[in-house]
Amino acid sequence: MTITSTSLSPSELSALKTKYEQLGQGHVFQFYDELAAEEQGFLLDQLLAIDVERLNGIYQKAVDASAAASSPNGEQESVEPLSKDVFDTVMPDTNNRKRKHQDIQDWETLGLSLIAKNQVAVILMAGGQGTRLGSTAPKGCYDIDLPSKKSLFQLQAERILRLQELAQQYKLPQEQQEKVVIPWYIMTSGPTHQPTVDFFKKHRYFGLDEKNITFFEQGTLPCLTMDGKIILESKGKVAIAPDGNGGIYAAVQNKGVIDDLKRRGILYTHCYCVDNCLARVADPVFMGYCASKETDCGVKVVRKTQPDEPVGVVCRRGGRYGVVEYSEISQDLSEKRDDDGALTLRAANIANHFFSTAFLNRVPEFAGELEYHIAKKKIKHVDLSTGQQVTPTANSGMKLECFVFDVFPFAQNFSVLEVDRKEEFSPLKNAPGSGVDCPETSRRDIIAQHVRFVQAAGGSVKGVPQNIVEATQVPDDLAFELSPWVSYAGEGLADVVNGKVVLAPAVIETRQDLVKLTQH
Amino acid sequence: MTITSTSLSPSELSALKTKYEQLGQGHVFQFYDELAAEEQGFLLDQLLAIDVERLNGIYQKAVDASAAASSPNGEQESVEPLSKDVFDTVMPDTNNRKRKHQDIQDWETLGLSLIAKNQVAVILMAGGQGTRLGSTAPKGCYDIDLPSKKSLFQLQAERILRLQELAQQYKLPQEQQEKVVIPWYIMTSGPTHQPTVDFFKKHRYFGLDEKNITFFEQGTLPCLTMDGKIILESKGKVAIAPDGNGGIYAAVQNKGVIDDLKRRGILYTHCYCVDNCLARVADPVFMGYCASKETDCGVKVVRKTQPDEPVGVVCRRGGRYGVVEYSEISQDLSEKRDDDGALTLRAANIANHFFSTAFLNRVPEFAGELEYHIAKKKIKHVDLSTGQQVTPTANSGMKLECFVFDVFPFAQNFSVLEVDRKEEFSPLKNAPGSGVDCPETSRRDIIAQHVRFVQAAGGSVKGVPQNIVEATQVPDDLAFELSPWVSYAGEGLADVVNGKVVLAPAVIETRQDLVKLTQH
Repeated sequence: MTITSTSLSPSELSALKTKYEQLGQGHVFQFYDELAAEEQGFLLDQLLAIDVERLNGIYQKAVDASAAASSPNGEQESVEPLSKDVFDTVMPDTNNRKRKHQDIQDWETLGLSLIAKNQVAVILMAGGQGTRLGSTAPKGCYDIDLPSKKSLFQLQAERILRLQELAQQYKLPQEQQEKVVIPWYIMTSGPTHQPTVDFFKKHRYFGLDEKNITFFEQGTLPCLTMDGKIILESKGKVAIAPDGNGGIYAAVQNKGVIDDLKRRGILYTHCYCVDNCLARVADPVFMGYCASKETDCGVKVVRKTQPDEPVGVVCRRGGRYGVVEYSEISQDLSEKRDDDGALTLRAANIANHFFSTAFLNRVPEFAGELEYHIAKKKIKHVDLSTGQQVTPTANSGMKLECFVFDVFPFAQNFSVLEVDRKEEFSPLKNAPGSGVDCPETSRRDIIAQHVRFVQAAGGSVKGVPQNIVEATQVPDDLAFELSPWVSYAGEGLADVVNGKVVLAPAVIETRQDLVKLTQH
Repeated sequence: MTITSTSLSPSELSALKTKYEQLGQGHVFQFYDELAAEEQGFLLDQLLAIDVERLNGIYQKAVDASAAASSPNGEQESVEPLSKDVFDTVMPDTNNRKRKHQDIQDWETLGLSLIAKNQVAVILMAGGQGTRLGSTAPKGCYDIDLPSKKSLFQLQAERILRLQELAQQYKLPQEQQEKVVIPWYIMTSGPTHQPTVDFFKKHRYFGLDEKNITFFEQGTLPCLTMDGKIILESKGKVAIAPDGNGGIYAAVQNKGVIDDLKRRGILYTHCYCVDNCLARVADPVFMGYCASKETDCGVKVVRKTQPDEPVGVVCRRGGRYGVVEYSEISQDLSEKRDDDGALTLRAANIANHFFSTAFLNRVPEFAGELEYHIAKKKIKHVDLSTGQQVTPTANSGMKLECFVFDVFPFAQNFSVLEVDRKEEFSPLKNAPGSGVDCPETSRRDIIAQHVRFVQAAGGSVKGVPQNIVEATQVPDDLAFELSPWVSYAGEGLADVVNGKVVLAPAVIETRQDLVKLTQH
C-alpha cells in the first residue's frame, strides 16, 4: 500500500469522527489532536480505508460462532466423509490398474488442452514471511539448500515454464506463433510485497515473461480487543494484520485480478500456497479432473494415514462441504476405517485449490456470510487511559482471519482429488534442524522425487539404489537435481535415460545437461 | 525481379550498344528500332542487367572444359575415394555399436546447442517447378497425397518448428524469453517466386514467424547459341534461364542473404533441395558433425549400393574434392569394393550441404574460377535474318549452369557424412505412376518412416507388422502420419507409445493427438 498523507476539511473530519463514534469505535480519535500534521494524515489514511460496519459485523459473527462452538449445549455439527461422486484419487487401484492409469491420462490430456487454449491461470498465496525459519524475507525466497540453490519461487516458475512448453505441443503446427501463457498472480502481504517484486525482478522473472506475472497485496483487518474495539498500536496508528489466506477472495476482486482473468479469457485457476516445494503448479491432472466434473471449487488432498495426524480434513459438516480440524473430530470418528483399511476421514487439506473464474466472480454474493476465525494474540497497543504503549505478555487482543477453505460451503460443484503425498506435498513450516516440514525435508523430498523420475523412466542415478520409494532411501549427501524445466512430473526423460546411468552429483538445468550427463 | 521500363539518353544508349558490339554481342540490338517504346524499355532492362564480359568468360571456360573432357588425348583426371579423415557415417558399426551411438549423440547434442544459440540457418533450393510431375506450380507446393495432404514445403516447415522447440529445451530456464529461431532462406526462380511467396502467405507460413523467412530469387543467365551468341527469344526479349543450383552462391551475395546471416549472427547453414520429402532440415546430427570438424563446406551423402546406379559420387578428382557422374567413372572403378563389401566409390550426392557463413562469404574470391556446365536445349528464338520466331525441334543452343557442388574444390575443411538413405532421401523427380522417385514413393517413404519411429519407441501401429525396415513392408493403403512437429526423427514418442498401440488410420498433428490415439 502506498501511503499518501491525507488532509480533510473540518466538516469531512467531523463526519468521519461521527461515523466511528456511532459504530462504537470513536476511541481511535482519542490522541488525534496531539499528533503532528503528518501523523494525522497517516492515521486518516488508515481510518478512511477501514469499512467499520463490515469490521463490526465480522467481529460479531466470529464471536457468535466461537461461542456456539464452545457451548456445551450447542448442537454438534454432523461430520461425514466425502461421497464417491465428489472424490477421486490418483493413487494406484490394484483392482484396476489400467482403468486408473487411463483416467489419470485423460485428466492430464484435458488439463494440458485447457492450458494450450490459454484458459488456465495460477494464483499463489505468498503473503508469508519466513519468520519461523529465521528469515524476514518472503517465504518464497527461501533457499532450501538444493544443489542449485533455487528458491521456492524459482522451482514454481520453472514448473510454469515447463507446462507452457508441454502445452505448446498440444497446439497445431500452424498455431505455433500463438504462445501458451499461464498467467501467474502472486498474492503478497504488506511486509512481503516489495521484497517479492524486487526478488522476481532481480532474477529476471526466472525466465517467465514479466507481462504475465501480477503481484497483488493481500487485504488487512484492524486488530481488535477481546470486546471488539479497534486497537491503536500507537497514538497515530491502527494495529492491522493480514486477513488470512481466505482474504484472497476479496483481494482478487479489489486488486483487478478477476478483471485480468476475464480479459485474458481464463476459465480456471489453480491456487496454492508458496511453502510447498513439491507444489504441482497448474497441475494438468488436477485441472483436467476438476474441469471434467464441471467443478466450480475443487480441492486437492493427500491421504491422512494416522488418526492423530494434526491436519485439517475435507469432509461434509452440517450437510455442507468444509474442513474439520483434528481437534474437532471425536476419537472414534478419527480412527474409523473403510473396508480397504484407509481412514474414513482421510482427505487431508494441503491448501491446493481449483476455482472457476465464474466461482471467484460469485464470491461477493456470499462474502457477507463468510465466517472469520479469531486468533488471540499478544498485540502491542497504546493504553487509552495513559497514552503509553504496552507490549503485552499475554494474549491481549485478536486478529480476524478467513481461511481459503471457508468458501467450500458455497460451492455448487465441489470436487476433491487425492494425490500422492510424497510426490506433491512437502511444506516448509519449521526451522532448520527441526526434522519435520523443515528446509532439510524439503530438500530431501525434491531430490528423492528427481531420482524417482529417472528410475521410472528406466534409468538409474549413480550411487542410488534402484526402485526407491521413500525419500529416506536416498543417501543424505546426494546432490542430484533436475530442473522442473527439464521434467515437470517425470515426462520427457525416457528418450534419454532409459537403460542408462545419469551421473551424480549433478544439477541438470536443460535437456542438453541431461544428454551430456547420461552415460551408456 | 520487378520489371520497370527504362529509358536512356541517346549517349547512354550509344555507349551500351558499343559495349555489346565490342564484346561480340551487338546483334541483340538488331530489332531495337522496330520496337515500341515500352518494348525497348523492357529489353534495355534485360541488357543493362547482363554482365556481358562475365557471360563471355563463362561461355569460354565452359566450352574449353567440355572440349578437354571429350578430347581423346586429354589427360584423364585421377578419381579417388574420400579418405577416412573427411568421411564418417551414421550407419551402424557392428564392431562398435556403442561408440557409433555415442558419436551420433555427441554430434546431435552439439548441433542442437548451436541451434539453441541461434547460430544455424537453412537455405532451401526451391527454384524448380513440378513440370515433370505435370504441374507448373513450384515443386515445394506439390501434394504427395499424404493423408494430411501436406505439401513438401509444409513438411519442411514443421521440421523447423520442431527443431526450434527441441533446441529451446537446450536453453536455461532463465533464458526462456529468448526464442530459438532457425531462419529460413528460400531460393526461388523467376516463374516460382511469386507463387511460392503466395503459397506461404496463404498457409500462414505453416506456423513459422514470417519475419524469419526470406524469399530470394535465383540468378539467370542468357541462353547462348552453340557459338556463344546471346539468343533473342523475340525481337525485344533475351532468352534467359536459371543459372543452376550453384547460382545460390551468387544469389546469397546479391540478394542480401549473407548480410542477413551476419546480422543475425548465423555461423552455419544447411542447404538442401526442395524435392526430398525426407530432408532433415537443419539436421542437428549433420550440423554438429560438420561443426565438430571445423568444416567450412560439408556434404551429406547416402550409400551407393549398385555399381550402375546413376548418381553423382563425392570423391577426390585430380587431387581436389568434387562429384563424378556415373558416366565419368570406369567400370572397374565403379565396381571396386572395400574389404567390408561396400563400394569404394559410394558417397552418393543428395544435394545436402553444410556451409559456414565464412565460406559463403569467401565464394566471390573464387567465383571467377567456377566452371559452368553446358546444357544443350531446344531454345525458342528469333531468326536474326528473317525476324521470325523459330521453335526448334533439335538442340539449338545452350543453357549455362553451375552446380552447388562446384565449390567443393575450394573448401578448406571439407567433410562428408553418410546417412541412412531410407531415413533421409526420397526425391520427387518423376511423374505419378512412374514407380521411381515419384509421388507414390515419396508418400510411401514418409509413412514407412513414421511407422519405424513408433516401433523404435517401443510401440506398434495398428495393422502393421512389427520391426519393419523397408517401406515396401508397410501396407500400401496404410494412412498413418505423424507431423514432424510431433517428432523430427523419432524422439519424444517413447513416453507415450512404449508398449502400446497407436491407432491407424491416423494423422497425428499434435502431442494431444498422439496421446488420444494411443491405446493401452
